[in-house]
Amino acid sequence: VIGQTETNTTSPLLGVLGGMGPAATADFFSKLTKMTLANRDQDHVAAVICSFPQIPDRSDAILNNGATPLPAMLHALSVLEGCGVTRIAIPCSTAHFWFDDLKRHTPLPIIHMVDAVACTLRDKGIGGGSVAVLGTTATIRARVYAERLEKWGFDCVAPGDAEQARIMDAIRAVKAGHLRNRQCAEAVRQVAVNLLKGGAQSVILGCTELPLLLPAVAMPDLIDATAALARACLLGTRLDFPEL
Amino acid sequence: VIGQTETNTTSPLLGVLGGMGPAATADFFSKLTKMTLANRDQDHVAAVICSFPQIPDRSDAILNNGATPLPAMLHALSVLEGCGVTRIAIPCSTAHFWFDDLKRHTPLPIIHMVDAVACTLRDKGIGGGSVAVLGTTATIRARVYAERLEKWGFDCVAPGDAEQARIMDAIRAVKAGHLRNRQCAEAVRQVAVNLLKGGAQSVILGCTELPLLLPAVAMPDLIDATAALARACLLGTRLDFPEL
Repeated sequence: VIGQTETNTTSPLLGVLGGMGPAATADFFSKLTKMTLANRDQDHVAAVICSFPQIPDRSDAILNNGATPLPAMLHALSVLEGCGVTRIAIPCSTAHFWFDDLKRHTPLPIIHMVDAVACTLRDKGIGGGSVAVLGTTATIRARVYAERLEKWGFDCVAPGDAEQARIMDAIRAVKAGHLRNRQCAEAVRQVAVNLLKGGAQSVILGCTELPLLLPAVAMPDLIDATAALARACLLGTRLDFPEL
Repeated sequence: VIGQTETNTTSPLLGVLGGMGPAATADFFSKLTKMTLANRDQDHVAAVICSFPQIPDRSDAILNNGATPLPAMLHALSVLEGCGVTRIAIPCSTAHFWFDDLKRHTPLPIIHMVDAVACTLRDKGIGGGSVAVLGTTATIRARVYAERLEKWGFDCVAPGDAEQARIMDAIRAVKAGHLRNRQCAEAVRQVAVNLLKGGAQSVILGCTELPLLLPAVAMPDLIDATAALARACLLGTRLDFPEL
């Protein structure tokens, strides 16, 4: 029960390592709330959200040897631990490049976004085979989705270079606040359509900025990684993740 | 700079005492992000959001002598202080009934939502006179807006009992997750129209659940208290609040 500090460590309290970017974190929080079966405030999940947008750019670190975001992410993790959170979610795909580093620094469970996506794929009846991932160039090159989804039995395909450049433009547009940029949304949609035509069973919006531009409801074959993570947070330990 | 614990106390870090209700807190966070002039993640405001929906019901405490939410709110406040936040926002109008109690327990500035609304009214060219407030019955009876807005030169009017009951139904619908209940939205709109016809210059959506049901963009004479608070948080100390 919140308000009783003594019992706080045993009450579930979700910690969100966020701000990468902040609009995506807000979207995650909003989806978490909307996906909760609740008749009143008190039925909802308690959460502490650290939105620390000053965490250095993940893509820049992976692709250009830019400043590593790890120390800032570890700081956020320690702030969350200090709040007594019992598990962690990170609504940023690219940040999962540092998942193992973060995991080494905390005894708390961190819900891996790619595992959450795998569970959503399975629940849609897609148990393996080819799926496409739209994400930052860093996420694609670092194989954040590809490597982990392979363990779940999926083969990942990604857009070609020209299409990938359009995905990055769209992600940057959202990060700059242009959530209603129709041209970018249409470009993302077209890339997704091409990947589905090419044989992908599903297209994962594998960057948390993308669902802000192109809601997954717009196309039944899209998987919203943000929504998948929110869902995994609500299902909590009832989700049967394999030990990866 | 986040990640450098030593300098954390001097970097601005917004603390959000939230979860009352969680959808309203998510809406506040989303508006805070959307209202920020930013070209990239790092331009955004850093924030820690405590969404503690288990805080006892504020209306029940004010109207029915129910459990006081104050200890749970003070716990949230102490969690935020432990995170090193430098100022506090509370995106719940009814919770402002305990504003003075909270203020007594922290050296941190708490941005008062009603002050934020007064500033928004002024910026719209409404410097005083009659304004209407839609809020929980507890907010209205406890004169949360009326008392403070009087000091800013406004007279507050509220709906009659029958219309107030419809406002409460709408607020409860949002708290139960029915964000797209058209019947409730239309009822709120009609109450607002009646108050404007009755001479109010503006109608304040003085419960953070209401903008979720009836976006202020739908009617130019509505003031969104959530947006007003987000705006005040972004303007920060540049807002010239009188010492109330």
